[in-house]
Order: sequence, then structure tokens, then C-alpha cells
Amino acid sequence: MARVINFSAGPATLPLPALEYAQKEFLDHEGTGMSLIEHSHRGAAYEKVHEETKSLFRELLDIPDTHEVLFMQGGATVQFALVPMNLRGPGQSADYIMTGVWSDKALEEAKITGRAREAGTGKVDGKYTRVPKQNELELDAGAAYVHFTSNNTIMGTQFHDYPDGGDVPLVADMSSDILWRPIDVSKFGLIYAGAQKNLGPAGVTVLIIRKDLAARSPNTIPKIFRYKTILDGDSLQNTIPTFAVYMVRNVLRWVRDQGGAAAMERRNREKAGYIYGMIDENPGFFRCPVEVASRSLMTPVFRLPSEDLEKKFIADAAKLGMVGIKGHRSVGGIRTSIYNAMEPSDVRKFVEFAKAFAKANG
Amino acid sequence: MARVINFSAGPATLPLPALEYAQKEFLDHEGTGMSLIEHSHRGAAYEKVHEETKSLFRELLDIPDTHEVLFMQGGATVQFALVPMNLRGPGQSADYIMTGVWSDKALEEAKITGRAREAGTGKVDGKYTRVPKQNELELDAGAAYVHFTSNNTIMGTQFHDYPDGGDVPLVADMSSDILWRPIDVSKFGLIYAGAQKNLGPAGVTVLIIRKDLAARSPNTIPKIFRYKTILDGDSLQNTIPTFAVYMVRNVLRWVRDQGGAAAMERRNREKAGYIYGMIDENPGFFRCPVEVASRSLMTPVFRLPSEDLEKKFIADAAKLGMVGIKGHRSVGGIRTSIYNAMEPSDVRKFVEFAKAFAKANG
Repeated sequence: MARVINFSAGPATLPLPALEYAQKEFLDHEGTGMSLIEHSHRGAAYEKVHEETKSLFRELLDIPDTHEVLFMQGGATVQFALVPMNLRGPGQSADYIMTGVWSDKALEEAKITGRAREAGTGKVDGKYTRVPKQNELELDAGAAYVHFTSNNTIMGTQFHDYPDGGDVPLVADMSSDILWRPIDVSKFGLIYAGAQKNLGPAGVTVLIIRKDLAARSPNTIPKIFRYKTILDGDSLQNTIPTFAVYMVRNVLRWVRDQGGAAAMERRNREKAGYIYGMIDENPGFFRCPVEVASRSLMTPVFRLPSEDLEKKFIADAAKLGMVGIKGHRSVGGIRTSIYNAMEPSDVRKFVEFAKAFAKANG
Repeated sequence: MARVINFSAGPATLPLPALEYAQKEFLDHEGTGMSLIEHSHRGAAYEKVHEETKSLFRELLDIPDTHEVLFMQGGATVQFALVPMNLRGPGQSADYIMTGVWSDKALEEAKITGRAREAGTGKVDGKYTRVPKQNELELDAGAAYVHFTSNNTIMGTQFHDYPDGGDVPLVADMSSDILWRPIDVSKFGLIYAGAQKNLGPAGVTVLIIRKDLAARSPNTIPKIFRYKTILDGDSLQNTIPTFAVYMVRNVLRWVRDQGGAAAMERRNREKAGYIYGMIDENPGFFRCPVEVASRSLMTPVFRLPSEDLEKKFIADAAKLGMVGIKGHRSVGGIRTSIYNAMEPSDVRKFVEFAKAFAKANG
């Protein structure tokens, strides 16, 4: 079958060159006579992949020497548990900025092992339709860290200006928008991201951590859960998910070849422009529940006049090879995940379809 | 390059048909127009893979209804931490049978979060050259569980008769020998295994857990670390490493096509027979440090008369396309990991080389 246009929220579409490269050498990685997936994580072949992946992150996100790139497993959900276990001192509290399901889950885990509080919310009339502004936050100057989710896949919101925690380290779950544009890494204590949206396949979590924070890991938590262990072991303290890191490497090479983070930002603004343009030009048919200033450029969501029309919209799109646009089961509607790898030309195709659909069914 | 013979200890060689299948459909999984790696973990395509993988485990290991198959991340090392966190009650102790680096690490993690003790050891004169027999164990009838490592990749030892914990649940780290032969799963409270040796790629851990034990998970540990959460969520409580599970599925299909666990046992006994036959027939040149009754059929280790000869042996083997035979850095010597996927004909080739080497250098 021809390649479909895959709007899935994650695992998500990946750059075709990254996939083709992996396919071509799947049985014989760089002439070594075996698949990368069969190589020892302690051998030269994987080590090269490991170093290149870290170094591509450093280059593409302009990561300062104060920070290190780590690879872990378990996705953002495991980090919801590990962030407070590692970064919160005895009796200390942590601040959470609430913007939807992911921050809810993060706060819930934090409360199981210690103190944590809401430091601001994007909830309006019971729904997370925006992200809070800096002057709406009530930050605790003694908090271990301030945590926020930079993009919210379910609600379709995104922080365009990051919170400022002052002297309190900023911790960001960037699972769904890491590398969508250049950022100033030095402002963050910790950035973490499950790879399966903007970076590669499910199965590896990328951490960019300020090295002095990793030293906070207490000896009372299991060794394998300490950021200090991962930092000291260069993420190789135990077997790393080699193939997942390799796929991330392939994706990062593609990002670099496209022109890096700045090129991603142009590309992403172009794609989101098509979607929101279509919505705003057809206000009687499409409706975005999100406040304009908080609109996500990664995962735009919108509604049609009725659930029946939404069903027909999803079915008609599928017939044209455009899949994965059904909104999250908890909110319904339509969601178009347009991560870095999504081609602008494919978003244009979708928008043409959507406009024609609105005309025919409006 | 032609395919090499890969004796790596893990990640390890995988069955060629499993790799070829993945390569062929890497860009288009079952005619869906996208890679399996790009499919949502909540979509129909992955769900089918998920169900088939669980069902192949049930079939191949004859798993009773009392037990469930779970998929987690982080390898055995994360289980070293999670087993005691989940299965040990307040103030309760756990028993560990010591057989080398892996049991050392498991016990070390268990002691960080509570009480744990040695219930037996395979150490002789400071070295782990055997596994203890049942009558050598000193079991605590009140222990939460008895933990052991069924095969020891570094020392080259293996339990051929499993310990009997009586009423205390048996917990086995089977990372390096799961599915090497049929076993009676009903005797185990929990079996866990990183996939990267006998099952597939690095990045997924398989658990076979007695369902009533999962209910023990205390509410004081993070939700995502509770076996109960994983059981209740069918391992899909958060994003699962889809491609790693898919590769395991491909490997299990191959195991089934070969004739299942019984066929694996015949095959593995044949391969180990070649290696140990070669050692025993050349006692002046090869020396296996392991007691005969504890010899591993998965990861035989042996020494040559000198380290210089070992270096030459490794280099000469590499010239013939036989790689990954260097012993673990902590013990030196030669290690031949001959997991399920290793072909008996390839082990024969290796043994022919080794015998010729002994003749020429003895």
C-alpha cells in the first residue's frame, strides 16, 4: 500500500529517510554482518550510534556544558515518578503547573512519595483550554522544582513562553514538542521527553539534565532510579534500548539535514498555519476550543458542528489515506498531530480535504 | 558483508527469519501504509501484535490461567528494584540465592528499600563456580519470596533443578535462559526476563506473574511501578515499546515454527554438547572453571592455557566471522553465548575452529 498520511499522536509518523535507512541496513549494520539490533550495547558499533545521538542533540539544541543528555526507559510516565524521587529533598515540596491529563498524572505520582502542590492552572470552567501566564502562577520559592508540560496532546494547548521559576529549577515534560524549535536549554534544570512523538520510536526517554541536579539523587531510592547512576554510567549502566536510540539517531540526522531546530520551527509554523487558518476561515463549521494564545503548534484540536459529522469526517479522511485524526477518547473531536516529521505538503492535502468537507457538509 | 556468527551475550543474535520479516515490512506493516514503529499503541495493528505475543508466550510456555504475561521497560535491573518494592510487605524480609553479579545486584537493590538476606550461595573459594543445591539453602519460611538468577551469563553457571521455596513464592530472573526449554510455570510466583538474549531486542522486559501476587503492590510506591497497575492496564497503561514487542512476536513465531520449547531444548542441548565436548576432549588446552553439574547450556565459559592464547583465539575466530566470544570484562577468558537463535551448524563451525586452534597451539 502507498504510504498513508499518519496524524497519530504518538507513536507517530517518522521521516521517511530515517525509516528507509534503517530498513536498508536492517540485516547488516555498516557492513558488520549483523543487525544493529543484534549488536552488544558495549561494542564499537553501538557506541558510535550512542555518541552520535548525544552529539546531535547537543548540536541541534545547542546544549551547554552544564547539561548532559541521558537515555532512559519507561516514557514520561516513569519520569512522573522519578523526578520527585530524585530532585525533592526530605520534607521539601514541588510546584506543578496544571494544564491537563499529563500534569495531573505527574502531580499524582509526586504526591505519593512526598509533598507537591499546584502552582497555577490552565483550567477554565472545568476544562483545560489554555495555559496559565507567568503572572497567574503562585510559585513557592522553597520548592524543589517547578514542573510543567510544554505541550498538551489531549487538550491541544502549548506554552509559547516558558514559565520562569526564578532560582527554583524548571522541569519540563517536552514529550510532545521537544526540538520543535530552538530553545534556551540553560533555563531548564531538566527536560524530559518520551521519544515517540518528535524524536523516534516508543521505548526510549531522552533527558537533558543540569549535571549538578543529578547529584541530588538520594541514596534511599533504588540505584537504577537515581539520575546520578544514569549520568555516571553514560546511560549504559545496564542494557540500553539500542535500536530505539539508533532510530532517534536517524531522525536527528534528518532534522540536521533539514536545517536543524530553526528549520523545524519554520516548518511547524507553516503546518499549524494551514490548520488554524482553515479553522479560523470557517468559524461556522470548525471550532477550536483552545484560547488563541495557547494553541498548540504540534497537536491542534478542533470540533465539527456535530459528533456525527466528526465521524463522517474521520471516515472520509481515512478513505483518502489520512489516518489517526480521531481526538483522544477522553475529549472526542478531531486532533491533528503534526510533529516535526509530518510533511507540510501532507498537511496542505488534509486542509484541502477539510475545506471541501466543510463546503459539502456545512 | 556475509552474516557473521554472533556469540554476543546480549543484545544477541536473532533468528534470521524474524529479522527478514521485519525488514520486508518495515515501511508498510501488513499493508497499512506505515511502519509498525509508527502505529499507535492503542490502534488495531499494534493491538493484534500485542495479543499474538502474549498468546504465543502462553502457548510456548504452557502458562496456566493463574498467571499473566506483562511487558515492562528497563530490563532486569529495574526489576531488581521493583520486585522488593512490590512483593515485600512492611517489615518483611526476602531471600536471595547468590550466584554472581546479577544476584549481587538484585540483593543490593532489595536492601536499599527494606530487609533482604542471603539464603544460599554458589561461591567457592571466593568465586561463583557453581549453583547451590536445594539442601544447601537456608530458607526463611516468613520471607516475601525467594529470588534466584536461573542462568549466569558472566560465570557460565545455570540452575538445572530450580529451588523449591515451599509456600514462599519463587521469583526468577530468567533474562538469559527463558524459553530455553519447557518449564512448569505454576511453580513460580514471578518470572522476569529482559528480552535481549533469548527473546528479541533490548528494550522490553517480559514478566510472567501469578496474578494474586500483583495484588500485593502497595499504594505507597508510585503507580507506574506497581505490578497491579501493569496487570490492570494489560501493559498498556502508558506507551509500550511497540517495536520491541513486535520483534519478540517475530522471534516467538520462529520458536513455534521450530517446534516450541521442547525443540529449543533439543537444539540447545546439542549446541552445548558441542562446546563442552570440545572442552572435555582437550583438557590440556581448554578448561571450564564451572562445576560440571552447574554448567550453563546458554553461556558456556572456558579458559585457554594463557591470556595471550585467548587473545589470539579471539582474533583468529574474528577472521573467520565468529565474533562476541570475549569473556565478560570482570572475569576474562572466552564466553560463547549460544541462545535459542544460535544455529547448531554455526556452533559446529566454531568448535571445528577451536579444535584446530588447540591442535596448532597446544
